[in-house]
Amino acid sequence: MLVIMSKEAGEGEIEGVLAKLTALDLHGHLSRGMERTVIGVIGQTYPELRDTLELLPGVEDVIPISRPYKLSSREFQPEDSLVKVGSLTIGGNEVVVIAGPCATETEEQVMSTARAVKAAGAHIFRGGAFKPSTSPYQFRGLGKEGLRMLAQARKETGLPIITEVLAPSDVDVVAQYADILQIGTRNMQNFVLLEEAGNSQKPVMLKRGMSATIQEWLLSAEYILARGNRKVILCERGIRTFETYTRNTMDISAIPIVEKVSHLPLIADPSHGTGKWYLVAPLALAAVAAGADGLMIEVHPNPDQALKDGAQSLTFDNFARLMQQVAPVVAAVGRKLAGTL
Amino acid sequence: MLVIMSKEAGEGEIEGVLAKLTALDLHGHLSRGMERTVIGVIGQTYPELRDTLELLPGVEDVIPISRPYKLSSREFQPEDSLVKVGSLTIGGNEVVVIAGPCATETEEQVMSTARAVKAAGAHIFRGGAFKPSTSPYQFRGLGKEGLRMLAQARKETGLPIITEVLAPSDVDVVAQYADILQIGTRNMQNFVLLEEAGNSQKPVMLKRGMSATIQEWLLSAEYILARGNRKVILCERGIRTFETYTRNTMDISAIPIVEKVSHLPLIADPSHGTGKWYLVAPLALAAVAAGADGLMIEVHPNPDQALKDGAQSLTFDNFARLMQQVAPVVAAVGRKLAGTL
Amino acid sequence: MLVIMSKEAGEGEIEGVLAKLTALDLHGHLSRGMERTVIGVIGQTYPELRDTLELLPGVEDVIPISRPYKLSSREFQPEDSLVKVGSLTIGGNEVVVIAGPCATETEEQVMSTARAVKAAGAHIFRGGAFKPSTSPYQFRGLGKEGLRMLAQARKETGLPIITEVLAPSDVDVVAQYADILQIGTRNMQNFVLLEEAGNSQKPVMLKRGMSATIQEWLLSAEYILARGNRKVILCERGIRTFETYTRNTMDISAIPIVEKVSHLPLIADPSHGTGKWYLVAPLALAAVAAGADGLMIEVHPNPDQALKDGAQSLTFDNFARLMQQVAPVVAAVGRKLAGTL
Amino acid sequence: MLVIMSKEAGEGEIEGVLAKLTALDLHGHLSRGMERTVIGVIGQTYPELRDTLELLPGVEDVIPISRPYKLSSREFQPEDSLVKVGSLTIGGNEVVVIAGPCATETEEQVMSTARAVKAAGAHIFRGGAFKPSTSPYQFRGLGKEGLRMLAQARKETGLPIITEVLAPSDVDVVAQYADILQIGTRNMQNFVLLEEAGNSQKPVMLKRGMSATIQEWLLSAEYILARGNRKVILCERGIRTFETYTRNTMDISAIPIVEKVSHLPLIADPSHGTGKWYLVAPLALAAVAAGADGLMIEVHPNPDQALKDGAQSLTFDNFARLMQQVAPVVAAVGRKLAGTL
Repeated sequence: MLVIMSKEAGEGEIEGVLAKLTALDLHGHLSRGMERTVIGVIGQTYPELRDTLELLPGVEDVIPISRPYKLSSREFQPEDSLVKVGSLTIGGNEVVVIAGPCATETEEQVMSTARAVKAAGAHIFRGGAFKPSTSPYQFRGLGKEGLRMLAQARKETGLPIITEVLAPSDVDVVAQYADILQIGTRNMQNFVLLEEAGNSQKPVMLKRGMSATIQEWLLSAEYILARGNRKVILCERGIRTFETYTRNTMDISAIPIVEKVSHLPLIADPSHGTGKWYLVAPLALAAVAAGADGLMIEVHPNPDQALKDGAQSLTFDNFARLMQQVAPVVAAVGRKLAGTL
Repeated sequence: MLVIMSKEAGEGEIEGVLAKLTALDLHGHLSRGMERTVIGVIGQTYPELRDTLELLPGVEDVIPISRPYKLSSREFQPEDSLVKVGSLTIGGNEVVVIAGPCATETEEQVMSTARAVKAAGAHIFRGGAFKPSTSPYQFRGLGKEGLRMLAQARKETGLPIITEVLAPSDVDVVAQYADILQIGTRNMQNFVLLEEAGNSQKPVMLKRGMSATIQEWLLSAEYILARGNRKVILCERGIRTFETYTRNTMDISAIPIVEKVSHLPLIADPSHGTGKWYLVAPLALAAVAAGADGLMIEVHPNPDQALKDGAQSLTFDNFARLMQQVAPVVAAVGRKLAGTL
Repeated sequence: MLVIMSKEAGEGEIEGVLAKLTALDLHGHLSRGMERTVIGVIGQTYPELRDTLELLPGVEDVIPISRPYKLSSREFQPEDSLVKVGSLTIGGNEVVVIAGPCATETEEQVMSTARAVKAAGAHIFRGGAFKPSTSPYQFRGLGKEGLRMLAQARKETGLPIITEVLAPSDVDVVAQYADILQIGTRNMQNFVLLEEAGNSQKPVMLKRGMSATIQEWLLSAEYILARGNRKVILCERGIRTFETYTRNTMDISAIPIVEKVSHLPLIADPSHGTGKWYLVAPLALAAVAAGADGLMIEVHPNPDQALKDGAQSLTFDNFARLMQQVAPVVAAVGRKLAGTL
Repeated sequence: MLVIMSKEAGEGEIEGVLAKLTALDLHGHLSRGMERTVIGVIGQTYPELRDTLELLPGVEDVIPISRPYKLSSREFQPEDSLVKVGSLTIGGNEVVVIAGPCATETEEQVMSTARAVKAAGAHIFRGGAFKPSTSPYQFRGLGKEGLRMLAQARKETGLPIITEVLAPSDVDVVAQYADILQIGTRNMQNFVLLEEAGNSQKPVMLKRGMSATIQEWLLSAEYILARGNRKVILCERGIRTFETYTRNTMDISAIPIVEKVSHLPLIADPSHGTGKWYLVAPLALAAVAAGADGLMIEVHPNPDQALKDGAQSLTFDNFARLMQQVAPVVAAVGRKLAGTL
């Protein structure tokens, strides 16, 4: 942490900062520039220290220079984390594709979609049983009945399943059914839920919050990692900006940034990232080209009858076409689709 | 809901939309413009319908024209909601001031602050016992011990208390101690928590999410209202924008907008809204001038020793000064400070 | 400027940075923390240096610690700048009100509005002769004919006039007619225009760009100041955010921030800041409460027939009412409306 | 355009809107829903009409349903625009690469870079002679001397050149030297400059403004097109968001959106889009995968000595490596690099 003194700060004020640091069992290192004095803080700093120092007389600014996330950082673990799900490995050289409906609606809808996405080459099946909804008057999922349907789909197709958990008290039941727990964008900073998901020791996919910086996202991952659960997968799904053409603005640059600063695998979700089915394929290809470890795609037998998010769902045919488009791009960046030779 | 057909749409596609509406027990009303045909949907619409219609051939856009929030809207209830807390009424002509530390730290800190803010004229005492924290390695509150301290502060000063609840399973215990439950910005779309807070039948202060539109904020209020709990207070606390000078950008225009579209009272929080103590007073005055029903202000005996949010906390002296500055502005807009003549 | 070395940086890399600084006639001051080494740069730094240093091996980040604006900063000039326009002084204890139509349309419209705003107590008359327009197919102003109408309004009412200049080649002609040149939000970084406006030696009102940080805004002011023209007035008019209810989000916190970091006066424009006439009054009061040195308000005899920005324009009656509401708020913050006792 | 009446609007208010439309030589078509009446406006509408109608009693909202851009839209011209530059065609099946330094600095720097990017396979050479700069105290380009250097680079390498024009009065001289005029992000709404660039009848590359919606960007393109100059190329270069890790957030979804709504070609600029050299390659690949018609890449012989934007510039080696990475991705999406078989 660096304390930047104001131009007008006198010796007394510099002394005051040094004394405060000493009182906190820290040590200050003076650096006098032409215009300002900067005090480097030596010792174990912590985020709240910033506020404390900012208030001392003569201090103009306090700049943290360590990154506050630890377990998720490349500095802590240089090699990539590999998350095993059944026979799949997420985060290595293989690219995985997760597909399925936004919400589980009927047995017929779930089973037909599971069969179709498997036939097209998907590796993991998704489907929401507990659904967050901006309005209390919209469809909010089938709950436990939806979990049962997902389990049946897994039984028939062999695909592992991922589904969202909304409440800390639901973690146990969802963990009984799901291979991967999903934490949704609105819950990225629901810290109680993060800790429960951590405790489950199941793989957890953590979606980026709508207005979360990359640093905040990694700090939320810390909540899971700190419970001893190292099976964390990040999911970029678009951020909120001023542009209204798309539902969100997919932040493709987050993919190589996470690759650089963290060892955790990253999946891209162009369905939520754009909100429009006809943008899903180009953004899926872009995400793979930028280095994503996988894709999550919404697929529905009849998007125009979906109870949720139909506008961003692909039909079976469109999904099969996307899988064919993805393959050469995966190869072009020197990787391979999971399960292919 | 309005269905905008594309310029190229033919009669067959228009027929298709009308047939779909009929199949859904709705009715379409054609409006042929020079360039495009628009179909007004007659009947009880619902948000998911938008996705369904957007996918039909020949449809260019679907525009919802009803506001999706109901119980919180002025159309539903034209007169202002008045929320009673002890002898106070929030949402009427009187302006109330909530003050206290970000987090409860020690008995001495809590009690001295409660006495100081009461002496300066505050009406409600705030203090966090359960604290959300971006990082798992930061201070997260004293928990139940903090609640006990707040209760003691109320006993001595007579000020009602407000404190945040983070987990659905904590609602009961927090409701035993607090006069008002606070839902924080990171939990604005934690729907399970909103419903539990609704069930408590206690007054609930709902902070705006960092990147929530006003419409989304009101929809979250619906979750509480829909449980039969009409004692909802909104709290504007700044939104996330590109400007980095302030921690958030306080959206002062949200104050008169909420006044126009909703009957719910609104409190402004310039401490979180700016993140800097020297901006708190000017933004507090601005909020009152724009029509806020009250203020929430962070106060700490020694901001430079605060465990949380010291940089945005006022000292006792600065808070007393603020109260003196607020009074004439309250009068200038034709209102009065609660408890004054 | 501070150079933050990465955790893994070795002595060779630290030496490399020091050698580079020496080569650039600068000097480095080492500060070794527990985790990282920081090198303070001693000597005259410049913005491009950041890029240079960021690329050296072992460097993790480079942090500028001087503010890049100079002539506009309080460090350069501690006392407030006072801009004289006729008998008015902008930036002192008096609050000034600028009012008039978005665009000059007809002689009748200009003259009747000038008379009405003068009668209601406005101090300066505004009106656009050269209008920027998002689309080439919209109304773009009357040009020189509009300037002539403004001059006539000044002659009759005695009010000084402000009008926008769009092109460097128009500065001369606009400066012949106007008392204050206005640089619009879309031209905040039209550097050629800024310099021409600076050269004119006329008072210049510089609107904040839609997505400009406060620092960028002050840097644009430097372009004018650096031409020896110290008569710069800043104008906050809303920034672009995700919220779509308002045309822009008015950044009220910019008012006290500018007051703190700069000596330049600041006018608030709630008409563009909100885009809706019914939000103009509450935001005008908020801006004054937060410390604005003045207001700029759009007024039109028949807003529903305005050629531009009717939705945000006040009628004569609404403007007169606003002036009555503003007066007590001005007094409540210890200032006075220009021209009153 | 659709006029949405408020729930409370009575027959008199509906009549009022219809009468106003008649007075304006338009016609209204009533659509009575269960909750609200909607009036479709029949006839030639225009953007200002929205403001006019919004102010009528009983009107809640007015929604434009035509897109305001015309000449740039796919509705106006269904087939792709092809812009010819020398023997190159931009906007067809071939992908073109523009490369060169941010700013022209010395003859040696310009010539060596031109030779290196040509050798690596670039098709067009870029370099700034007139440079916009946030601060008046930074390097602002060599001006005409820079243009001369670019011309020499073209003479030696045969590569066409693109360079930025900042002022309307410079269009002529820049057009004498450049094959493509570039309009920078800060000038996207400098309408006088757009018209002059249009008048030149040269190919014009129009960069997206930092906070411009896609619609505003296309409206700016209209200014050029409306001068009879159809050789317009769009350039996505990142938008301003809350994320501070990158200089801008590159909006990859703008690529397929522009492809859908406009016939104009689109180039992606990942150098400005990210601001960090190590993110340029992944974002370049992403842009091509998403359908960009070309790339613009900053290259410098010694990025750590660049006078401008060194942190985002590639070395010759890194650029050559990027060209090798791009080729298979171009092939994977069924296109080919210009000049290859």
